[in-house]
Amino acid sequence: MNMDINILAETARRSLDPFFNPKNIAVIGASRDPYSPGWVIFKLLTEAHKAGKLKAKVFGVNPKGGSLFGNTLYKNINEIPCDVDHIVVVVPARYVPKVLEDAGKKGTKVATIISAGFSEIGNVELEEQVIKLARTYGIRIIGPNGLGVFDAYSGIDTMFLPYNKAAGDRELLAAPRPKPGFVMFISQSGALGVSVLDYMYGEGLGISKFISYGNKADVDETDALLYALEDEKTRVVMIYVEGIKKQGKKFVEIGKEFSKRKPIVILKGGRTSAGARAAASHTASLAGNIKIYDAVFNEIGAIVCNDLTEFLDTTKALAFQPPAAGRNVAIITNGGGAGILASDKAEMLGLNIPPPQDDLLKKLKTAQKEGLIPPVATFANPFDLSGSATNESYKVALEYVLSDNSYDAILLIALHHVPLLTSEFIDEIANITFKYKKPIVAVDVGGAEMAIWVREKFDRLGIPAYPTPERGISALNALVKYGTFLKKHNLLNEYLNKWTKPTR
Amino acid sequence: MNMDINILAETARRSLDPFFNPKNIAVIGASRDPYSPGWVIFKLLTEAHKAGKLKAKVFGVNPKGGSLFGNTLYKNINEIPCDVDHIVVVVPARYVPKVLEDAGKKGTKVATIISAGFSEIGNVELEEQVIKLARTYGIRIIGPNGLGVFDAYSGIDTMFLPYNKAAGDRELLAAPRPKPGFVMFISQSGALGVSVLDYMYGEGLGISKFISYGNKADVDETDALLYALEDEKTRVVMIYVEGIKKQGKKFVEIGKEFSKRKPIVILKGGRTSAGARAAASHTASLAGNIKIYDAVFNEIGAIVCNDLTEFLDTTKALAFQPPAAGRNVAIITNGGGAGILASDKAEMLGLNIPPPQDDLLKKLKTAQKEGLIPPVATFANPFDLSGSATNESYKVALEYVLSDNSYDAILLIALHHVPLLTSEFIDEIANITFKYKKPIVAVDVGGAEMAIWVREKFDRLGIPAYPTPERGISALNALVKYGTFLKKHNLLNEYLNKWTKPTR
Repeated sequence: MNMDINILAETARRSLDPFFNPKNIAVIGASRDPYSPGWVIFKLLTEAHKAGKLKAKVFGVNPKGGSLFGNTLYKNINEIPCDVDHIVVVVPARYVPKVLEDAGKKGTKVATIISAGFSEIGNVELEEQVIKLARTYGIRIIGPNGLGVFDAYSGIDTMFLPYNKAAGDRELLAAPRPKPGFVMFISQSGALGVSVLDYMYGEGLGISKFISYGNKADVDETDALLYALEDEKTRVVMIYVEGIKKQGKKFVEIGKEFSKRKPIVILKGGRTSAGARAAASHTASLAGNIKIYDAVFNEIGAIVCNDLTEFLDTTKALAFQPPAAGRNVAIITNGGGAGILASDKAEMLGLNIPPPQDDLLKKLKTAQKEGLIPPVATFANPFDLSGSATNESYKVALEYVLSDNSYDAILLIALHHVPLLTSEFIDEIANITFKYKKPIVAVDVGGAEMAIWVREKFDRLGIPAYPTPERGISALNALVKYGTFLKKHNLLNEYLNKWTKPTR
Repeated sequence: MNMDINILAETARRSLDPFFNPKNIAVIGASRDPYSPGWVIFKLLTEAHKAGKLKAKVFGVNPKGGSLFGNTLYKNINEIPCDVDHIVVVVPARYVPKVLEDAGKKGTKVATIISAGFSEIGNVELEEQVIKLARTYGIRIIGPNGLGVFDAYSGIDTMFLPYNKAAGDRELLAAPRPKPGFVMFISQSGALGVSVLDYMYGEGLGISKFISYGNKADVDETDALLYALEDEKTRVVMIYVEGIKKQGKKFVEIGKEFSKRKPIVILKGGRTSAGARAAASHTASLAGNIKIYDAVFNEIGAIVCNDLTEFLDTTKALAFQPPAAGRNVAIITNGGGAGILASDKAEMLGLNIPPPQDDLLKKLKTAQKEGLIPPVATFANPFDLSGSATNESYKVALEYVLSDNSYDAILLIALHHVPLLTSEFIDEIANITFKYKKPIVAVDVGGAEMAIWVREKFDRLGIPAYPTPERGISALNALVKYGTFLKKHNLLNEYLNKWTKPTR
């Protein structure tokens, strides 16, 4: 399989790359109606190209001809005076077969079909006709009935959502695109997809590629995984899925091999009977027996999330921190209550919070005698440095715990409210963690300026930060789960040897 | 008991009121050292009085005399030329008995003791001496070893945390005080308390009073509940507790009667053995057998939370929405995926998501035929209005569902990203909900400007808003739990009749 997957990945890479890095892209259905998807997509692509953010040349096709945003509108794709490797299709469903035929004759390689009105409303035959034509002409398809693709590096963006929207008499950023990063996100739901992008933007979590494949007539999660395998910008893949209809066996085979190299994070919609009923009505997905799905996800080593918050938190941890070699967690804190809540959550998730062994305890007590750690600090794990904690206390305690083999992962709770902890401590802490390949995440609780600043700064330095102790522990737990999978396959050491801090 | 609790509440009100509404307040240990608690507290109180935000006159006591912030520093409390009903004590522990004696002779009614160094480090005798003196002179005590009290209405604030802190070369809001609101918050952990205040500030959740009682030598959660019973600014009480040592029986009796009038939300630190071990080291609390605690909390009808996020989310829902009369939830959405995630969470929590009965279905289909609801909308519950949903679609669907007796509570998911939903819809929706006493919470997913604006606007209009479908459902679940408790005691109808929308 190891040989196979490399060949499959190379094939996927060649066939799908024009979705993300086309030389030329044409919007079929570029429209003068500013409320239409064709207007928005053509405008955003045109502007991106003009601003130098998108290398690909952008062409518009509209049967009425004319021009828009200073660009000619061609009446038919065959009038475009150069090759078009990627078409974005926003015409009504019934015209899509003709569009594919014309594009196929012109040698187009990939089509992102935004148009709705296919199998999702019962037009199965029309969708099958589209698939057949695509096969005939060797065109790969994303869609129909999705938002298409977004590539934060190349600038390709087929989402028909304007950035801004009116809020009363102001314009606010309503559909933000996350900055370039290390996460590929595949979503069966377009609306949930764009909501998550909005959430990612707010969290400062960067993206490599977003794929909203709609009815997945052709490209599905398995294809996306194959593409992501060698994509150096993608360190983790997150998948929102309601049902996997086709090639379930291939998904398992590819998924398993993929997870040996990069983590997959999954949020499955329709885990319960109420959710499954909703999923059937949404994407006609057979959400199916969740036990079967969970068995599959478990076999491929995917990290399965319980909710949207965990989906994002887990992804952020896996994108920036190495997997954990075991389940022994050290909690360093300057707030007793926060340390207790973290301990509770850790035990509920099956993590261990073992007390320190004698040599570590001795080192910490010596540091305390030397005045580096406050006299009221306690070292039971949580290591509670107390409200009198200084930058120095954190540095000493962290260095000792990082170098102690009894602990596999660290939760660093640093409530910024205490007087003696100055803002420089974040850089100081990050400098220490760079020396180790032991996972660490940070927690600061609060919603005002300083709390936000502290968490953003930790994030920027590659230490994922969370606003509650429980969310921090839950993120660490994902690193433990991924480490457990790698260990099971005797790959953990090799993985850690190759692992490098992401730089952004 | 009903008679008793009113008398007890009236007694508590009279004896504790000087903590929140003193005529005169003195800081014993007002200090010239800007890094000391005595400096911060004296400065904040003095400034608040000068700015007209605090009615009480502020006095400083420091054995060295002199002046600070333009105020005389008295060498002893007995030199202050008027009555002092509230003293804030920040002197070293060993001087506290003398301070209490002097204050007692002067007729002081309450003392907030910030000073640490009592039972929490083994100085049990010193603490007992303080309690004895307080009893002798009829002084009520909050503390020692806590942050004291904050009253968002009267301006009393004994927290020794400056508002701002340096972040690099900027000053950022680091220890914000939430705006006036309807929540009383009692915390056994000072650091967790101030973190939660920070979180509340960020969420825009207002507060009535905050009590950080530290070692709770005198005033504890039972006293606070008695005070809160008739406090018209307090609609819900949130309690972070690690252990209830004293008057457990009284807590049960008072708590049970309290819950019949106002909800109690509890976060218990030390639910697990790891957490209990941490709690023992933090506040010397016997976190004890969690089953016993849960039985007690269940008996008093408290809403017990699993984590910090739920603690805040639940409180916000209970502060602004009425309890639910049953567990049948309607989900209205414009995103299929979000509706599915909400359904999954609802079923996991034991809520029902029943499909509509024939008459409701008929009304919705008629509205669809009339073009008020998009043709692709589905009504299986979730009521998925689709990405083509308009303000009108939401209004029609909401009105129908609110007036349908099959549903006890509503989750309104309104993803702002869709093009036809304009920002006016929030006001329009709020206007409809005002006519009903059926609980509703809103969800919009995202972290950029518009998502934040939408949620804040919902919040301001009294419809608690959440950033994920699951958090919305979890908040509704708290309203169901509280309704179930009231129903068990045949109090639901009476409660709902008296219930009014909070106005702020």
